Amino acid sequence: MTLPIASVPNGTVTSAKGFSAGGVFAGIKTPGPGKLDLGIIYSEQPCAVAGTFSQNTIISSTVVLDKERVGTDKSIHAVVVNSGCANTAVGDQGMTDAKEMTKLAAEHLGVSEEQTLVSSTGVIGVEIPMALMREFIPQIKLTADGGGDFANAILTTDKRTKEIAVSFDVDGVTHTVGGVSKGSGMIHPNMATMLAYVTTDAKVDSAFLQSTLSAAVKISFNQIDVDGDQSTNDTVLLMANGEAGGSEISGGDDASTAFAEAVRQVCEYLAIEIARDGEGATKLIEVTVDGAASDDDALLASRSCAASMLVKTAVYGRDPNWGRIFMAVGKAEITLDESKIDCYVNDIQIVADGKGISYNIQSVVSALGGDEVRLRVALNIGDGYGRAWGCDLTEEYVVFNSAYTT
Amino acid sequence: MTLPIASVPNGTVTSAKGFSAGGVFAGIKTPGPGKLDLGIIYSEQPCAVAGTFSQNTIISSTVVLDKERVGTDKSIHAVVVNSGCANTAVGDQGMTDAKEMTKLAAEHLGVSEEQTLVSSTGVIGVEIPMALMREFIPQIKLTADGGGDFANAILTTDKRTKEIAVSFDVDGVTHTVGGVSKGSGMIHPNMATMLAYVTTDAKVDSAFLQSTLSAAVKISFNQIDVDGDQSTNDTVLLMANGEAGGSEISGGDDASTAFAEAVRQVCEYLAIEIARDGEGATKLIEVTVDGAASDDDALLASRSCAASMLVKTAVYGRDPNWGRIFMAVGKAEITLDESKIDCYVNDIQIVADGKGISYNIQSVVSALGGDEVRLRVALNIGDGYGRAWGCDLTEEYVVFNSAYTT
Repeated sequence: MTLPIASVPNGTVTSAKGFSAGGVFAGIKTPGPGKLDLGIIYSEQPCAVAGTFSQNTIISSTVVLDKERVGTDKSIHAVVVNSGCANTAVGDQGMTDAKEMTKLAAEHLGVSEEQTLVSSTGVIGVEIPMALMREFIPQIKLTADGGGDFANAILTTDKRTKEIAVSFDVDGVTHTVGGVSKGSGMIHPNMATMLAYVTTDAKVDSAFLQSTLSAAVKISFNQIDVDGDQSTNDTVLLMANGEAGGSEISGGDDASTAFAEAVRQVCEYLAIEIARDGEGATKLIEVTVDGAASDDDALLASRSCAASMLVKTAVYGRDPNWGRIFMAVGKAEITLDESKIDCYVNDIQIVADGKGISYNIQSVVSALGGDEVRLRVALNIGDGYGRAWGCDLTEEYVVFNSAYTT
Repeated sequence: MTLPIASVPNGTVTSAKGFSAGGVFAGIKTPGPGKLDLGIIYSEQPCAVAGTFSQNTIISSTVVLDKERVGTDKSIHAVVVNSGCANTAVGDQGMTDAKEMTKLAAEHLGVSEEQTLVSSTGVIGVEIPMALMREFIPQIKLTADGGGDFANAILTTDKRTKEIAVSFDVDGVTHTVGGVSKGSGMIHPNMATMLAYVTTDAKVDSAFLQSTLSAAVKISFNQIDVDGDQSTNDTVLLMANGEAGGSEISGGDDASTAFAEAVRQVCEYLAIEIARDGEGATKLIEVTVDGAASDDDALLASRSCAASMLVKTAVYGRDPNWGRIFMAVGKAEITLDESKIDCYVNDIQIVADGKGISYNIQSVVSALGGDEVRLRVALNIGDGYGRAWGCDLTEEYVVFNSAYTT
């Protein structure tokens, strides 16, 4: 039996018991109304911790440090995050500064440096202004309703914060999973700068925690694309402090299934919100591939389609140009039989048995004009299923990215 | 000793002896001044033939047919090419029409259907208007100076034709290699099909012909990027008719080295011209990666950089944002040592030992404003070398590819 999972109204990364958070404006970014650029998530109880990180060969010192401090034999209390500066490609100074940031946060919170993580996001090749860190990290106020400030503090070019929480009950004990993320450029699977933090008050075996996170990331954050580029700083962390008071979750029972599903829902929501808020985007594109030879094939093909510049521009132009969808599915190099492919825009079929069919053009153009466009490719050769999310590609993306630093 | 290779003034695909070509306007595309959309390249002597084709799983029937008819035990006389319609994703009718096109051309030329190839480029999902083919293929006049008309006939949204020829002498016999290509963009933008045809009057062993072409394509056509998408119709053909009258070229001597170098030069020129003429492009970007652990690593990294949307937009915006270059090199997942990387824009160094250095901003911004921008990444860990070519990404690309609405 599956345990029901409920949405938590106005859920944030501090909805799970025992987590607090906060944010300040330290002056790393240019000032603006309500703008914050430095934040902390904290749990008084030590947390089991799982993480997934950028696959880029060039990574931030913060990612190197976090990788060392995350693992099945580790526990952590806090993560300190700044936006506006990536702390990447700055030589040895990068690790020195990353460590000092965790030391400053640890001293502020009264925990050990080794139990503190750090993330940075922003411009590459610029050193973190450590004088600001020394002044402002001690000023961050941690509160149970500080999730919103933290969500604000980690934004770069995002237009809005991305937060959620869900809960499920096990034997009368409510377990909550909350999360927060930021996008919104350099977004392509294998992690973009793309940061996400998921917290839970469930007590979770650390090996099960990592396998649950890895499985959820595979079908959520690794299936979104804004521009095909892959950041040096991508990080997803899942922290479990056990404050709900339930039994340990370690796989193989209803509570574990519910926990994994709750983590999946939180990751999927946070990933989709990043795609929706892609630089210059006017709409979310969801691509579903079903009937594939395997789930992996369906994940690859849907991701290829969501990442294609020609599909993105076609959707922006409300053009049901399914030739581009075929091209994108074909370049994923999966198993397929062209003569069996059906395509749909929202629920309107436009291709049957690999060939275009008549349909009501106005209905399809109208569907493509919505805030969310669903493309479905039915391969009709197996049971493989996968989804991916992207956004349209607009002139604004180009303007935005051709006028970013200098 | 290397044999000198000379440029042939106003060289075309018919510069090599014994090749003729021509083009007509058949009415597949919308009419325009001087516009052609159907052409043939022909050699009276049968040609040894080598080919490389799209790796997309969904390919045009024309590509399927050509693959059958190209090989070390095959010879061919002609290739017929139309623009305006891709003959892709039209079901069984695609192969029926591709075969009939070669039959019509073969009858017109008095050769066998099996020794005739076919390519199509244009909108996917639309059947070839065969009535037009039946009327106009017999009207194509083949002449020794028809290379220009053929170059015109295969264009889609290209702004200009792409033609070249080079020659080298072996024991007093002049050998010529000529070529023509078309690139990215269509009047009804659909995808960037790349077609290229290379001809030579050298007599070449067919196995050596294929290995020479494959090696040249690897470092030319396979190293260009306009938008990261891969057409269903990409084709490069190399035809050798032996009309120069020299000895057979089969590898292992100076003549073979000169022939391979001539083919490489022709392929590189034609590939670069495609990148330069990318949809919406204002400039060519050449990326060189040297000091890599291997040539393959350098090819991968340079291509990743030339294909990155964030690098393309940075160059468009004249922004020496080298963090994006690091990101793109890192996502290629090659061997590197971040602390040894140097970067240059044209010849101005902007990164040393993995860190930004001071440089004259105005000089770099000015360099980025030119028609050709050279980015160089020196990895300083080995001897691997590779180059790739792309173009900048502009608002015009987006307008161009989203403006066709049904």
